[in-house]
Amino acid sequence: MKEKLFIIKIGGNVIDSPKALDRFLSDFAAIKGKKILVHGGGKIATELGKKLGIETKMVEGRRITDADTIDLVTMTYAGLINKKIVAALQAKGCNAIGFSGADGNLIQAIRRPVKTIDYGFVGDIADDSVNTSLLSSLLDQDVMPVVCPITHDGEGHLLNTNADTIAAVLAIAMAKKMESRLFYCFEKNGVLRDVNDDSSFIAELNQSHYDEMKGKNQIYEGMIPKLDNAFQTVAKGVHSVYICNAFHLTSNVNNAQPIGTRIS
Amino acid sequence: MKEKLFIIKIGGNVIDSPKALDRFLSDFAAIKGKKILVHGGGKIATELGKKLGIETKMVEGRRITDADTIDLVTMTYAGLINKKIVAALQAKGCNAIGFSGADGNLIQAIRRPVKTIDYGFVGDIADDSVNTSLLSSLLDQDVMPVVCPITHDGEGHLLNTNADTIAAVLAIAMAKKMESRLFYCFEKNGVLRDVNDDSSFIAELNQSHYDEMKGKNQIYEGMIPKLDNAFQTVAKGVHSVYICNAFHLTSNVNNAQPIGTRIS
Repeated sequence: MKEKLFIIKIGGNVIDSPKALDRFLSDFAAIKGKKILVHGGGKIATELGKKLGIETKMVEGRRITDADTIDLVTMTYAGLINKKIVAALQAKGCNAIGFSGADGNLIQAIRRPVKTIDYGFVGDIADDSVNTSLLSSLLDQDVMPVVCPITHDGEGHLLNTNADTIAAVLAIAMAKKMESRLFYCFEKNGVLRDVNDDSSFIAELNQSHYDEMKGKNQIYEGMIPKLDNAFQTVAKGVHSVYICNAFHLTSNVNNAQPIGTRIS
Repeated sequence: MKEKLFIIKIGGNVIDSPKALDRFLSDFAAIKGKKILVHGGGKIATELGKKLGIETKMVEGRRITDADTIDLVTMTYAGLINKKIVAALQAKGCNAIGFSGADGNLIQAIRRPVKTIDYGFVGDIADDSVNTSLLSSLLDQDVMPVVCPITHDGEGHLLNTNADTIAAVLAIAMAKKMESRLFYCFEKNGVLRDVNDDSSFIAELNQSHYDEMKGKNQIYEGMIPKLDNAFQTVAKGVHSVYICNAFHLTSNVNNAQPIGTRIS
């Protein structure tokens, strides 16, 4: 039987609240066994960018990562947020180690090719681009990786990569060796039938049900990349994937029937 | 016989020049065997601080690290500079991994106690506060640590720590297992008799000669912490310590008679 590995993704809204983040990190630190934390960026980069006069560039509604912006997100995600999380986890008795994809060549990405839009320094990842031997070696030493959404192209460039995708790729890559259990944690209880009613979460969502809901515009726009990533992992050997509330993490990892949406 | 370990400290002036840094990193990547890079901060943090309205605070001529400043240096040192160096080394075929002292509990420090001055978030390190088992495990996997001058206190606070001290502490801690060879690299050829003549470097400097030179004000002020650190390492089992030019690194690590000042 494979050993369990919890891959936990925490989103921006929790990161933006010091109190919520502290509570979440206490819960993460308390999870028994091997675990990886993947964090997003929150609003800190946008606020810092405003102060520095770095504007958010959009082309056809899509965000562009130019040279100033990749410096900004590297400072914020790999520097400020990642190290604060790592230091907080150390204080809670969890021997955390921060990572960008460049560190130890953990995740190598490909700069997104220019078709109609040049997204700038944005990286897409193949499933086989994860240094799983380094991850396994650290986990075997009870050192828990904390991964920020910055990767690299192997040619000296840092790249901005979606944190949901990073969590998915890590879960898939590690599924060959371990029983990967992926939790996308955010501020709602799961995929909701009614976005204003947190109790309306769907307990189990399969691809055809998801496609049907998407067709009826019943899926909130921001959820689509998360769910697309989640369905990919299920197809690629990840043991289980939940979309759930950050504050149900402790009960969910220890419970056969988590509160949240299981992707099946 | 113990295996060699090169601990290389690179200072601010080289970091501030992209061209000089690139050349130095090529030389670092080319060093055969196990190695650790420790980098300082350069002027980037000061320039960024000005843009963000974070003033450099001084009390009695000493720099104070307040809450805004520790955030600023964490972003700059652990984020921007560290990750750019790591990505550049990856492109040069060196599997580098970035570290603050919080990551993997690499270096735990003690917040400097308040006597007459409160230095703020500044950390002092004991020699036994290094996670040498993690360092050894990474080096054994040919993963080379790149360490920025940020530590932590184990209670959730990040601390600003002198990079020369970090290099010294790492060299001392690893000297129990390996033949630690420490190189403080900067823009001069060594400790100079005449600060305007780069050929006037002193080939070997011992404690009494150093004390004599200090007494006569012949040591440039900025060199004193570097040299104080260097003499400590010699007394604590480090095989050899040189103060040398960043651009002599390749020849110096391979040469029994390096160009630079040997501390003895």
